Amino acid sequence: MNAVELIRQKRDGLRLDPDAIDWLVQGYTRGEVPDYQMAAFLMAVVWRGMDAGETVALTLAMLRSGTELRARDHVHPVADKHSTGGVGDKVTLAVAPLVAACGLPVAKMTGRGLGHTGGTVDKLESVPGLRTALTQEDFIRQVETVGLALSAQSADLAPADGAMYALRDVTGTIDSIPLIAASIMSKKLAVGPSHLLLDVKVGAGAFMKTRADARALARTMVRIGTDAGVETAAVISSMNQPLGLAIGNALELAEAVAVLRGNGPADITELCLHETATLLRMAGLVSDEAEGHARAQRAIEEGSGLAKLRTVIEAQGGDPRVIDDATRLPRAPYIETVAAPRSAHIAGIDAERVGQASVRLGAGRLRKGDPIDHAVGFVLCAKTGDWVDEGAPLLEIHARTERDARAAREDVLSAYTWSAERPETEPLILESIRAR
Amino acid sequence: MNAVELIRQKRDGLRLDPDAIDWLVQGYTRGEVPDYQMAAFLMAVVWRGMDAGETVALTLAMLRSGTELRARDHVHPVADKHSTGGVGDKVTLAVAPLVAACGLPVAKMTGRGLGHTGGTVDKLESVPGLRTALTQEDFIRQVETVGLALSAQSADLAPADGAMYALRDVTGTIDSIPLIAASIMSKKLAVGPSHLLLDVKVGAGAFMKTRADARALARTMVRIGTDAGVETAAVISSMNQPLGLAIGNALELAEAVAVLRGNGPADITELCLHETATLLRMAGLVSDEAEGHARAQRAIEEGSGLAKLRTVIEAQGGDPRVIDDATRLPRAPYIETVAAPRSAHIAGIDAERVGQASVRLGAGRLRKGDPIDHAVGFVLCAKTGDWVDEGAPLLEIHARTERDARAAREDVLSAYTWSAERPETEPLILESIRAR
Repeated sequence: MNAVELIRQKRDGLRLDPDAIDWLVQGYTRGEVPDYQMAAFLMAVVWRGMDAGETVALTLAMLRSGTELRARDHVHPVADKHSTGGVGDKVTLAVAPLVAACGLPVAKMTGRGLGHTGGTVDKLESVPGLRTALTQEDFIRQVETVGLALSAQSADLAPADGAMYALRDVTGTIDSIPLIAASIMSKKLAVGPSHLLLDVKVGAGAFMKTRADARALARTMVRIGTDAGVETAAVISSMNQPLGLAIGNALELAEAVAVLRGNGPADITELCLHETATLLRMAGLVSDEAEGHARAQRAIEEGSGLAKLRTVIEAQGGDPRVIDDATRLPRAPYIETVAAPRSAHIAGIDAERVGQASVRLGAGRLRKGDPIDHAVGFVLCAKTGDWVDEGAPLLEIHARTERDARAAREDVLSAYTWSAERPETEPLILESIRAR
Repeated sequence: MNAVELIRQKRDGLRLDPDAIDWLVQGYTRGEVPDYQMAAFLMAVVWRGMDAGETVALTLAMLRSGTELRARDHVHPVADKHSTGGVGDKVTLAVAPLVAACGLPVAKMTGRGLGHTGGTVDKLESVPGLRTALTQEDFIRQVETVGLALSAQSADLAPADGAMYALRDVTGTIDSIPLIAASIMSKKLAVGPSHLLLDVKVGAGAFMKTRADARALARTMVRIGTDAGVETAAVISSMNQPLGLAIGNALELAEAVAVLRGNGPADITELCLHETATLLRMAGLVSDEAEGHARAQRAIEEGSGLAKLRTVIEAQGGDPRVIDDATRLPRAPYIETVAAPRSAHIAGIDAERVGQASVRLGAGRLRKGDPIDHAVGFVLCAKTGDWVDEGAPLLEIHARTERDARAAREDVLSAYTWSAERPETEPLILESIRAR
């Protein structure tokens, strides 16, 4: 094999065979194929794309670059869910305990936030004492005993993905559906669930800006999972405005607790029930989604979901009292309520702008490894379609200083558009993709 | 400026402004922009192309990466010619002395062969003792005193080109008309002639396989030269079969001498007269090409072209006796005549295959820095369109050993196609491109 020859083939739009892709990925992971050849190859992939077979081969090559956890060999069935990332997306923090409480174990490794989108690990770490760096052994043992573990991604799983993602980040080769799909799925397959639900976000605050792209990504990932023997499905959900009301790590954790308590915002509660029902149906614990929905609703009403989250926090060394007493979570020293600048319907709240404003407040990071402030963020008082009176509370800013809050006010207000008429609002859950 | 941002712009098909291109090229030459970012950028250029303005900016940025010789500030007018490379292309060795003999000084820096195409430096170095590594001072002084210097490319001129070419070679990013044009023209502009003639080869043995590509490359280069204040023109000539009869370094030098003596093969003699006439007309030494043609013909008949080559060889420390006594050139120990395998017209002689066969004989190199054998190669006895009788001499193989010759025979015979009818033959000189 010869890296230049493979680059040329992809450049010329030819199909690469699985052996060639595997050779390139393992060579790169071992440092035998240099960065500059991988960079040229990745740009050729952005240009020419990859067909389904190539994308599966790339994913499996990235998977083989490290160890495999094969969670389903230890616990069966065992579920995983993944979101492609959005603003205010704390769904995992509620869905994972709900699913586990309904009797389907969940083995979830998750990432940190980057750019305008948050990460579940950061949200979890707002709980004092909570460890997210579990060993593979502890992770599996906790799934076996507690039915749920929420861990940071292990560096031993799919190490090619880490190396390739870092290179893509500095070479303008992030935006490619096969590369995105292979990156996500190599990590999911390395954990090795029996059932996997993907939440592909679409809209202003998401990575996929169009329905067509979201659908293509969802289909590609479902195909990869299915080919690898994991029962995989996807939901496409809107990320035009932030999800729920809270944006910021501790604020989002508190909102997930509210969902599990039955008093969360309607939109995120709906999505959490839907995802829980889908996973329960996929794993055969219920006969259809209506039954799954009812089961999830009961787990909220009976408090078993909340109890599961409490157990997980304890198991991972965190302070479980945060669940009943949100003041034990990090709290911003300066909280300011922003009044609505006019009487009107909210026509839109640009999720990306809100996300960027939260990064500037300190809730997120522009570069990997940057520190974040778990306390800061926004809590919205109204969402798209709602009527607000001039002077009524529009949102809260949780900031380190008054000065930060003042800067954030302009930032976040620029995310709002207004309308005298009640605007059309799109549904949150847009589409479901199942394996064929 | 930010390399990732510029890569993304090119990836998205946006136009880069000259400052951005200059920043990237100087940053890369200084080692501040890493190979992997330049590799991704180059692949994005292969994908999206560059418009005329961007290509001119790239060329000028590469030019500014090193020193400029500005030959035209020392000698005026002063010509240069460049061929994009082919098999059996020894035109420079005859045209440069002819042009100089007709009163137009020539300042020519030239390259080594790579792959199936030869290089003028290698052909020159078959003359015992001849130095091609001239200092910039000696190069200019010789143009002033002798009217012609033939030197290897100076590493101080357009160093960005050397670095970028090496990277393109290992990242599958050679095949891009703007990148090829900028590479060639940055080196030509660094020498700084007042008049420049480009011979763009097209066909099986050339880098440009189609007329459309050859025309695009020629037009791009003419535009770059003209924009930079150099009177530039191009000729597009066929490289479907080898040029002339000799392929191999010393063999080609001897053939160039034959052209200057008036007994060279018809095709290459025609091209040499045409190029000489064009340069003389461009520089205003003759009023039209017919007069230029006559002047060049006279330089052959009177022997002034040959005398010029002799003077240059002497000036550069070579043994001028090679001109009158070809046995003083390196000679292969084993020469075999291959008989025509059938009675037929030659329908084609694939130049690339012949070039590759000559590389395997030792006349060329696959990798930069590989040693070559100046003596070996082929001498054809007939060309496309000619009738040959079975058993009559078809070509000579000049090899190191009988074994090499035997291997080469199969190789080179596979380049021939045959026809019972006399095939249509295309003209050698296909098109002229002038600045608008």
